[in-house]
Amino acid sequence: MLLNEATINKLDKNYRTNLMNCLSGTKPAFLVGTVNNNSSTNLAIFSNIIHIGANPALIGILQRPVVNDSHTYKNIVETGYYTLNQVNEEIVENSHYTSARFTINVSEFETCKLTEEFIDGFKAPFVKESKVKIGLKFIQEIPLEINKTILIIGKVVLISIANNLVQPDGNINLEDAKSISAGGLETYYKVNKIKQFSYAKPDKLPF
Amino acid sequence: MLLNEATINKLDKNYRTNLMNCLSGTKPAFLVGTVNNNSSTNLAIFSNIIHIGANPALIGILQRPVVNDSHTYKNIVETGYYTLNQVNEEIVENSHYTSARFTINVSEFETCKLTEEFIDGFKAPFVKESKVKIGLKFIQEIPLEINKTILIIGKVVLISIANNLVQPDGNINLEDAKSISAGGLETYYKVNKIKQFSYAKPDKLPF
Repeated sequence: MLLNEATINKLDKNYRTNLMNCLSGTKPAFLVGTVNNNSSTNLAIFSNIIHIGANPALIGILQRPVVNDSHTYKNIVETGYYTLNQVNEEIVENSHYTSARFTINVSEFETCKLTEEFIDGFKAPFVKESKVKIGLKFIQEIPLEINKTILIIGKVVLISIANNLVQPDGNINLEDAKSISAGGLETYYKVNKIKQFSYAKPDKLPF
Repeated sequence: MLLNEATINKLDKNYRTNLMNCLSGTKPAFLVGTVNNNSSTNLAIFSNIIHIGANPALIGILQRPVVNDSHTYKNIVETGYYTLNQVNEEIVENSHYTSARFTINVSEFETCKLTEEFIDGFKAPFVKESKVKIGLKFIQEIPLEINKTILIIGKVVLISIANNLVQPDGNINLEDAKSISAGGLETYYKVNKIKQFSYAKPDKLPF
């Protein structure tokens, strides 16, 4: 299949949405946990997530154009704190359905049968069932004028992860963590480690 | 392991770099192909990649702070076009070693034994061995002042992909495409499809 700008423009809308959401490959699946100033919690799955830096430790998440029920965005701006919780195999179905547009005034923690956990006085709720939990402080929002999405940048200020998932060199074994990747909007993949290569040096190529 | 802002700040530098690069989960691994106005090609692996939108079809890649040998960045700005080529199992080792700092004036296509392919008159080179190839037009760069990285936004103007990898609904089967995820800076994972769930509706929860 060879598509150019003209044939891309003519694709059926749903087909195009699925294709484009898959094109950028396997995306990390995370649950974003927030709370508002009235203590109502919210939980939503995000996969458009990007590592921005290690020092300072920064992660970006992409917010769709803000509408009335964009609770995650509103809570992040209102309280300044949020959590990222890695989706794993055991909770992949529950996690997917947090994307439903619930009209009732009940937290997705309850409707999707996931457990709120508060750690070390951190304001926003974590997901107890997640194996890699990150607490973030809201740093900056960058509106992308081209399509009205918003890049939300947060600083990592809390990490909760089982000791046995972290190697002596600091790498996390994402297979053992049963980390989930998302492909498109509805499909999920588990990951199997192939290899950890050496730091790439031009005079030490293996081929 | 429970780390807070103070203990994160005290981590060993290499340990911290690995940990933070793994925290955001399994990242899509792509080879970015570029050429300069003297027809010298360049190829570099990127994993900090984010889907920005389906209509217009936009993908973002994060450029580290620009230095003298940031050929990918310079070529994108110089020519306005670049390619993203999904890394697959067969080329994962070759792809990883494109990250070496080659000082000789030879393209990574040659040093890393990957094959340049020019498709349909598109200016930048694709990787023949890749199964999902994307041609992008440079739209915008957004400098992130907080750590001097740059979000490079491109519009998808060419797609080359085997027909049998695309489902009738437009989703790409990323397991069949043998798509590779990166965890951290040196570790690679293959993906196995778990399930494609239904579009999430609040009155049709499966639990």
